[in-house]
Amino acid sequence: MSKEMKSDIEIAQEAKVEHIRDVAARIGIEESDLIYYGNNKAKISDELWNKVKDRPDGKLVLVTAINPTAGGEGKTTITVGLGQAMAHIGKKAVIALREPSLGPCFGVKGGAAGGGYSQVVPMEDLNLHFTGDFHAITSANNLLAALLDNHIQQGNEKRIDPRQVVWKRCVDMNDRVLRNVVVGLGKKSDGTVREDHFVITVASEIMAILCLADDLADLKRRLDRIIVAYDYDGNPVTAKDIKATGAMAALLKDAIKPNLVQTLEHTPALVHGGPFANIAHGCNSVRATKTALKLGDIAITEAGFGADLGAEKFMDIKCRVAGLAPDAVVLVATIRALKYNGGVAKDQLSKSNLDALKKGIVNLEKHIENIQKFDVPVIVTLNSFITDTPEEVAFVKEFCEERDCEFALAEVWKKGGKGGVELAEKVVKTLETKESKFHPLYADELPLAEKIETIAKEIYGARGVIFENTAKKQLAKIEEMGFGSFPVCMAKNQYSLSDDAKLLGRPKDFDIHIREVYVSAGAGFVVALTGAVLTMPGLPKSPAAYQIDVTDDGKITGLF
Amino acid sequence: MSKEMKSDIEIAQEAKVEHIRDVAARIGIEESDLIYYGNNKAKISDELWNKVKDRPDGKLVLVTAINPTAGGEGKTTITVGLGQAMAHIGKKAVIALREPSLGPCFGVKGGAAGGGYSQVVPMEDLNLHFTGDFHAITSANNLLAALLDNHIQQGNEKRIDPRQVVWKRCVDMNDRVLRNVVVGLGKKSDGTVREDHFVITVASEIMAILCLADDLADLKRRLDRIIVAYDYDGNPVTAKDIKATGAMAALLKDAIKPNLVQTLEHTPALVHGGPFANIAHGCNSVRATKTALKLGDIAITEAGFGADLGAEKFMDIKCRVAGLAPDAVVLVATIRALKYNGGVAKDQLSKSNLDALKKGIVNLEKHIENIQKFDVPVIVTLNSFITDTPEEVAFVKEFCEERDCEFALAEVWKKGGKGGVELAEKVVKTLETKESKFHPLYADELPLAEKIETIAKEIYGARGVIFENTAKKQLAKIEEMGFGSFPVCMAKNQYSLSDDAKLLGRPKDFDIHIREVYVSAGAGFVVALTGAVLTMPGLPKSPAAYQIDVTDDGKITGLF
Repeated sequence: MSKEMKSDIEIAQEAKVEHIRDVAARIGIEESDLIYYGNNKAKISDELWNKVKDRPDGKLVLVTAINPTAGGEGKTTITVGLGQAMAHIGKKAVIALREPSLGPCFGVKGGAAGGGYSQVVPMEDLNLHFTGDFHAITSANNLLAALLDNHIQQGNEKRIDPRQVVWKRCVDMNDRVLRNVVVGLGKKSDGTVREDHFVITVASEIMAILCLADDLADLKRRLDRIIVAYDYDGNPVTAKDIKATGAMAALLKDAIKPNLVQTLEHTPALVHGGPFANIAHGCNSVRATKTALKLGDIAITEAGFGADLGAEKFMDIKCRVAGLAPDAVVLVATIRALKYNGGVAKDQLSKSNLDALKKGIVNLEKHIENIQKFDVPVIVTLNSFITDTPEEVAFVKEFCEERDCEFALAEVWKKGGKGGVELAEKVVKTLETKESKFHPLYADELPLAEKIETIAKEIYGARGVIFENTAKKQLAKIEEMGFGSFPVCMAKNQYSLSDDAKLLGRPKDFDIHIREVYVSAGAGFVVALTGAVLTMPGLPKSPAAYQIDVTDDGKITGLF
Repeated sequence: MSKEMKSDIEIAQEAKVEHIRDVAARIGIEESDLIYYGNNKAKISDELWNKVKDRPDGKLVLVTAINPTAGGEGKTTITVGLGQAMAHIGKKAVIALREPSLGPCFGVKGGAAGGGYSQVVPMEDLNLHFTGDFHAITSANNLLAALLDNHIQQGNEKRIDPRQVVWKRCVDMNDRVLRNVVVGLGKKSDGTVREDHFVITVASEIMAILCLADDLADLKRRLDRIIVAYDYDGNPVTAKDIKATGAMAALLKDAIKPNLVQTLEHTPALVHGGPFANIAHGCNSVRATKTALKLGDIAITEAGFGADLGAEKFMDIKCRVAGLAPDAVVLVATIRALKYNGGVAKDQLSKSNLDALKKGIVNLEKHIENIQKFDVPVIVTLNSFITDTPEEVAFVKEFCEERDCEFALAEVWKKGGKGGVELAEKVVKTLETKESKFHPLYADELPLAEKIETIAKEIYGARGVIFENTAKKQLAKIEEMGFGSFPVCMAKNQYSLSDDAKLLGRPKDFDIHIREVYVSAGAGFVVALTGAVLTMPGLPKSPAAYQIDVTDDGKITGLF
């Protein structure tokens, strides 16, 4: 990144931010349907949906990526930049993004609201408490946990087996010492001693539920179904069984309303929800996406991690559950990540290396093929870096066009919307000329094990799937409990198509190992773990928190 | 309470709530100084203070109470009702209250926004997430904890002794199993194993700090000073030492701004902060109180628990630190509580019993004397219950007037502001005719042990103070560390003037036992524990959460 460029927070703080009323007005939202959180953020009333729900939908565009390097390839930046670019060619776009989590903001990652001249603002608010949705989820999650342990404490009528409590407490913080804890120590009045675990809030099933719920009634039905523990006979105990649903829903009544903010170029952005992309589906809320489709010509959304996880779950979980169908997919790559997939060391990625690019582009190739399996048209874009050479870009362009994909270089980080005009034109051309015949990858009726095999073979390119014995038993039990028709949510590392993070490019002749399977009955999917999944990150030796500060007059500094 | 009365939530939900812009306008706050949270809540900008700070102050009235029975005697209801009543006699009052905590709302207590026709609205918002202040405090508290354990994990440069970590994690939830926990179990990468404890958010030192800080700069200085642990040599390790202050302050930058809401009669109410009244000082924020003094003729505020704890700390901690001086104190009693203090069983309190009243009124007598020791005029009010008889009320009235206190019966629960007109008139008469010569009870220079003895003897009426050996050592260490000039914050049960909750009325010939002493260096006081203090409540067998729900169209039900 060029030295002359300002930092993200500098650009964001210097931006002229419109009153959110004016941003809303341009997509036909009246002031009476806004619930303000200051001048630049608003929640959208429940009533708006009733007003717009019978309108025809706009086009739905998903932004996804190749297998990423550690820092990510700039999906959010491209999503924001593409949304901004649409205005440059006369199209009314509405962006639908995930909310960032506080934890990573203080850890390694820093902020997550796009970058450069393609950001959502106010970025400080977005990266800190925003409108409080994640705090509401944390509260609902921990109320459920408190009610559960209180049920055990007060006579344990449901005969909950303390060894089989599956509901975990959560905090929106990277806090490794909370991964494995013992609670309930002390006196009789201090509870029953048991092993417990905290996850980060984005890994709470309530986050996934909030993002998949149609409305408050559906949210309550889903909360009812959450399995919190098993009793001494092995029967599931649900949130409904311990009478937790009403109070949890009360805590979530505002969190379920989508949040409206804007990009640096005043493009409307609905930023709402943010479940993990491994043990959950990694997409923003169904409500926000559906609202964006009603309010814009084009709704542009994204999904977490690379396309093997994010896009697959977007299609097979979110779209299946919500009755959505993408009209086009934008697949984001970087020359650097393709070279990395071609075997180049991280400190050598700035050097031109056409051979490594040719070797690594098989990763992009596989993701193109994968999306085409859903019968959705693909547009490939390169998130431009100043170290990219014209030869490298030309090679990628030709590679894509040979595979029936439009291609565009995106310079939205450096130039904002005008750096994305070519991409916007290619997206619109695709929408106008290629029909999406979207269908999920597998049918609801397929047995769970075969769903996993289908994803592993078709999407990851695996030879087969090896189920550990535990996983086999768990699958049988989940089907016996009546959840066999659920889609599968794969928890796999994001760096490789395989379950070994070191196998870059387009690995072949590998098996996927399923170690554990469990049901998220409220969210409505079965989670298959291919390895250890970290649901509570730790802080690095020098956390981002050390740099973050606020001036005496309230200006945030050091947030990247 | 009469059967025809509607429930608090019914009254609140039927109320016509004004746009907060209009409430603000009546006390001279322009729209540009409001940060809206919906139409009925707003934070007040940092700039407002600069605009009003040179104005003369209004009169400061503190509402406090006798030693309460379990349900409390209705301090908040009286505070709200008195504020409403002021408008009926042509006075411009601004109310300054504490924010309720989520935990008790789902536990025994239910909501806390006044009652009957003297409530702050919207009561559901106030009792749930409100403007997110408590969530911000929880986040800052837990970020500090995560940074501390991460410091130990990443080489422990400051040589923090894991056995001497004094900073606790928090949740805003009643969750007994978190009182005593072991964290850091698992692998090397999962942290250092140590005993830990969670407190409820209102017990976090950050809550006390936020409420005592003048502004962001002062907040940061206070955060810097928080002692989080001691090293292997016994030296204190502070939040500044582990570089946590900037990021914590960033999380608190909006939480420090006072919140403006309204009562059922549209009286402006600044509801901001809510520290525990045992291990902390139990008052709303200094900023809110000071702002109320600039915006109204009369600022009416309250303090937690009875006057022995709440009023004493208001005077000796809040007023001392902030340079405030109360002009009058309203002392709330109920006939029921006075009879209870006279030895009547809880299930017999509805019956007329003048003898018990005469016996129990010594509790009121002691609190009147106590407040007079600060040389502040006292007005006594009875929070009216339908079981009160005219003879009982007349007896209390005469008792007070003999002691140079104005007296008024308050019917604000049933009648709103007009039920408080007599009280408002007596308050105004007192303000106009009696001069407050407020001074704290003791001087800064007094040794800590003597401060404790002064409070115990003068306020509680104790014979003496017995310091356990541990407490003596701790006092010596705290003075050695340089905190000897801090005021003392007494942690004592609220039901008795003594440290034995069963000694009602006006106990004599008792000693106060000091078991433990510690310094809250950021808040700026020394906490003296007279017994076990529960900083993490538990849920009862049938928690209030079981009744709370939300309808499919977003209306909260079952919140009391």
